[in-house]
This record gives sequence, C-alpha cells and structure tokens, in this order.
Amino acid sequence: MIVYGRNVAKEILKNGKKVEKIILQDNFDDKEIFSLIENRNLKVEKWTKKEFSRFDKFSHQGIIMYIEDFKYTDLLDLMVNESSLIVILDHLEDPHNLGAIIRTCEAAGVDGIIIPKDRSVEVTSTVMKTSAGAIENVKIAQVVNLGQAINKLKDNGYWIVGTDMENSTDYRKIDYSGKIALVIGSEGFGMSKNIKDSCDFIAKIPMYGKINSLNASVAAGIMIYEVIRSKK
Amino acid sequence: MIVYGRNVAKEILKNGKKVEKIILQDNFDDKEIFSLIENRNLKVEKWTKKEFSRFDKFSHQGIIMYIEDFKYTDLLDLMVNESSLIVILDHLEDPHNLGAIIRTCEAAGVDGIIIPKDRSVEVTSTVMKTSAGAIENVKIAQVVNLGQAINKLKDNGYWIVGTDMENSTDYRKIDYSGKIALVIGSEGFGMSKNIKDSCDFIAKIPMYGKINSLNASVAAGIMIYEVIRSKK
Repeated sequence: MIVYGRNVAKEILKNGKKVEKIILQDNFDDKEIFSLIENRNLKVEKWTKKEFSRFDKFSHQGIIMYIEDFKYTDLLDLMVNESSLIVILDHLEDPHNLGAIIRTCEAAGVDGIIIPKDRSVEVTSTVMKTSAGAIENVKIAQVVNLGQAINKLKDNGYWIVGTDMENSTDYRKIDYSGKIALVIGSEGFGMSKNIKDSCDFIAKIPMYGKINSLNASVAAGIMIYEVIRSKK
Repeated sequence: MIVYGRNVAKEILKNGKKVEKIILQDNFDDKEIFSLIENRNLKVEKWTKKEFSRFDKFSHQGIIMYIEDFKYTDLLDLMVNESSLIVILDHLEDPHNLGAIIRTCEAAGVDGIIIPKDRSVEVTSTVMKTSAGAIENVKIAQVVNLGQAINKLKDNGYWIVGTDMENSTDYRKIDYSGKIALVIGSEGFGMSKNIKDSCDFIAKIPMYGKINSLNASVAAGIMIYEVIRSKK
C-alpha cells in the first residue's frame, strides 16, 4: 500500500509497521521524520519536484512510503467479548467516513468493524490518514457475504441492531445489554433490504428538520456512544 | 460564490436561490438539470472540455454555477428560543466538518451556528456540497470576536458548555435545561484558552482507547444529540 504525507508517515515510522520503500522530495526538510528514518535504519530514495508532480493530487508533502498492506482480522476473532459491540458497515463508499468511524470505534473501545469485500470502501491510504492513527488499534474483518456474517453473529449470541428512519424505534429506547452488532447503512441508500430484514431491532435517530439526513460517520458516532453509555 | 457539480446545482435550482450564471460543458446531458434550468428560464453558457479543464480539481461534473453569496444571520437573530441550543465552532478549519455539522444541526433542530470571521472555515462551495442541502435551513452568524459573542449569549441567559478532555465532567452528567451554547474546538487544537475560560461547564466524551480522538463533526454530533435528548 502507498501512503502519502507527513502525519501518516510519522505514525507508521513510530509504530514499527513494515516499510518497504521511502521516497522523499530532494528539498524535504522535516527533522522529526529524518530522525525516525535514521532510528529505524531505513534507506530512502530522492526524487525531484518534477518526479513527484504526478502524485500531487495526493497531498504528499514531499514524502511517499510503500508499506505492508493492512491486515484484516478473521470474523471469529472479533467475537471475543461478553459485553460486546461490533460495528457492521453495509457498503459504505466514502473513505473519509470509514476513517472517521475507525476513530470513533477506537475511542469508544468497540471490539471490531465488519465490511463487505465488494462494492464497499476498504482500507486505503486515505482511510489511514483520516483515521489519525486509530486504525492500528481497531480490528477490521472483510467478509464476502454480510448476510452470512450476520448469521454467524446471531449464532454467537449477538443482537443485530440496524439504523433506519422507517419502521423503527427511538434509538434511546432500545435495550443494548448483551452482545450487540450495530449496522450502519451506506451514504446514499441506507441499509440493504436483506440486511434490514435480518435485524432484531431497527433504531431511529429522531430528526426535527426538513432535509433530515446525518453524515454516515456522525450517525455512527451517535449510535456507538448510545450503546456504549448503556454498557458502562 | 461559485459552486460545482450536479447535486448542489439541483438543490440550488430547486430552492429558488438567485443564480447569476450557469456554465455547462458542451456534452452535458443531465435531463433533470436541463428541465430545472428551463423552469427557471435561466440562460446558459457552453464551454468545451478544454475550457472546463482548469476547474477539474473541483469535480464539476460538467456544470459550474455562479450564485449569490451565502447570507449570514445577525447574532441576535439566533437567540430566539427559550429552550434553545446554539453551536459555536471555535476556529474549525475543515470544510467537510462544517458541512457535516450543518447537516447535524439541521436534523437536530439547532437554532443556529456561530463561527468567527478570522482563521476559520467559512461557507464555501465545498461546505454547501457536504451539507447536502441542509445549509438552506440553518442560520449561521459570522462574528468578529468569539469572546464578545459569548458575553452577549451570557447576557441573554445562555449557559456556555465547552468540550475538552481535561478538567471536565462526563457529558452525560451535565444539566442541559435552559438555553445552551455548545462550543466545539478546532480539529488540531481544541478550544482556545480564552474561550475555555469563559465556559460555565466543560463536557468530556469518555474515551477508552489509546489514540482517543474523535473527528470534530462526530464529537459535535454526539454532544448535540445529548443536549437535544435532554430537551425533548
């Protein structure tokens, strides 16, 4: 995986993740990064401003690193906790939303995130950047079939809580004790029909305006903290 | 103000906002937009793909519109409600965060948003796009001095609630009855010192991870819905 920019580079150089290649612009001058590179005894390649220019759209700030790919977790390894919360992202598309949700899950102590393999955002360099380092502490499982993953969760005693505006219960009136898997729908279309049908509860965040739509990562944040508050 | 892209164009053409100029790429073919333009009897200018290319970084999708600038509200016109919530953004920088917070404020029925004039994001076309139309229903006041605005709010019976991790109270244990002005700190630095000093309460969203940082729009969403739940 290729990552761009100073903040994510610092995070990776500090946390010991395997770095395959570092490319710096020839006028690069960040002393902290030079010292981190020296500590890890890594070799760097120098490029001119012109050679860097084809990566300008990635806000590289003069540093590009090739690192090992993100390691997804097995679904079974998420189901480890008796008073658990797992977050399922039903075909989210926006890497900024995934990054922000990873931050929220890290802060709230969520056990893990499940994303589908197809038609879904996955862990890219934008996601890593937006997650502000939180991704190193959050388990993510990538599954072929979300419906089957939900069945496995049910077999293991999880209650499935979806989010939707229709046929739903005020999110503050649902019992979140026990093991909970919370489904967040996609930005444009909400939850898929088959996923909605497999939910034990559908939670509604009440809205009082005319447009009435929340950003997916904001809705996820409100729901995750509602579940967490009932568990602590 | 210049706005780019089909979704924001549709929203503006529908809501009757004044449009000064529309530029379409010569192969533009969105029938809904053509019909909205015809309904409003607006003239269009056609440009070639090459002429459009200098705007390519704005994801224009073949449509650029010049519209009237966003109209900020006077601070006094936000203070209209007895059981009120006003959101103060203390030098936020990211237009996507402002857009997402505007959506949350619209959905939660917040009375208005206050932003400072200097060193702060303001309402740009990216903000309009991210707000997904919600901006048309949310009042925003832009003030020269946040400290003075807070004093005016206090004179009008508002309690000022800040958000911070230090010297703070669990956000679920604060009394939000009465008129509340909620301060959200900037992405990198949180609240300014003088603003923090002027708060009546400082709320903490508890965190259980290692990195422990929430995206500003997610933190705002959790806090806004916590205040709203105590009022409804």
